[in-house]
Amino acid sequence: MPEARTPEQRKADTLEKLNASELDAWVSTASTSGPHLVPLSVAWHAECLIIATEPSAVTTRNLAATGRARLGLGETRDVVVIDAEVVESTPANDAANAVIASYLAQCHWDPRDAGAPFVVHVLRPVRILAWREVNEIAERTLMRDGHWVV
Amino acid sequence: MPEARTPEQRKADTLEKLNASELDAWVSTASTSGPHLVPLSVAWHAECLIIATEPSAVTTRNLAATGRARLGLGETRDVVVIDAEVVESTPANDAANAVIASYLAQCHWDPRDAGAPFVVHVLRPVRILAWREVNEIAERTLMRDGHWVV
Repeated sequence: MPEARTPEQRKADTLEKLNASELDAWVSTASTSGPHLVPLSVAWHAECLIIATEPSAVTTRNLAATGRARLGLGETRDVVVIDAEVVESTPANDAANAVIASYLAQCHWDPRDAGAPFVVHVLRPVRILAWREVNEIAERTLMRDGHWVV
Repeated sequence: MPEARTPEQRKADTLEKLNASELDAWVSTASTSGPHLVPLSVAWHAECLIIATEPSAVTTRNLAATGRARLGLGETRDVVVIDAEVVESTPANDAANAVIASYLAQCHWDPRDAGAPFVVHVLRPVRILAWREVNEIAERTLMRDGHWVV
C-alpha cells in the first residue's frame, strides 16, 4: 500500500481530477422510492459542479425534489466523494454563457444543441472527501460545510 | 464510437465483470436525509451481490431502513448499473460459510476477522442495465423484475 498522502496533496490531486478533460462522475440522488445512480459528464466551474440532464430523467426529478446529490469521482481505489447542493437548475438555453462555455470545454458537447432539451444544474460542494486505501481514511475530509479545511 | 454490442454480449461482459477478482462497486443508498454513495468491495455469489459494512455505517443504516441499493460497476463509459434488494443482513460471524467463502475468494479479506464487527449483506439484483456509449442506451436492460431478459 502506498504511503498516505498529506491533506495538501489530496487537495491538489482532487483539483487536478476536477479540472480534467472528460471528467465523469457517478451521480447519486434520492427520492422516497429509493436511491438513483448514473454516470454523467461533469464540469468544474467557479468551484461548482455542472451537470446536464434530460428534463424527464430521474436525476432531474430527484434534484428538483431534494436539492441534493452525492458524486463519486475516480476509480474505486482513488476516490473523491462530494456532497453537493443545487444552486440552480435551468433549461440549457437559459444557462449563463460562462457555465455553458466551461461545460463545453470540459465535457466536449453543448447541452443547448443536443437534439433534445437539457437542464443544466449548478451544484455547490458542501463536503469533499478524498482517499485511496484504508490508510487514507483518516484525514479524508477536505471540505466541510462548504469551506475547504485544507 | 465502437459498434453497439448485442444484448447477449453485454450479458456475457456483465457476468465477466461480476466474477472478476477485486470487484469494486459504487454503492448508493438513500434515506430521508438524502443520497449516500461509497465504493465497496463486492462478491457475486449465487446470483446475489455480497457486501460488508460496519454496523454504524450510513450504508448499513440505509439498507436496514429501505432494503434497497443501486450499484454502479466499471468505468463511467463501460458501465453496469444494478438495482438490488436486501435479502438478508447478518453479523459477519453469523453469515453462511458459502457466502463468506465467496467474499473471501473475490474480495481477499474476511469480514469475520477485520478487527471490528462487520455486517454482511446479501443483495438480490432486480434490474441490471449495461451500456458503454450513447449507441448502447437502447437495449441496455439485461434483467427486469429479477429475471434475465437476455
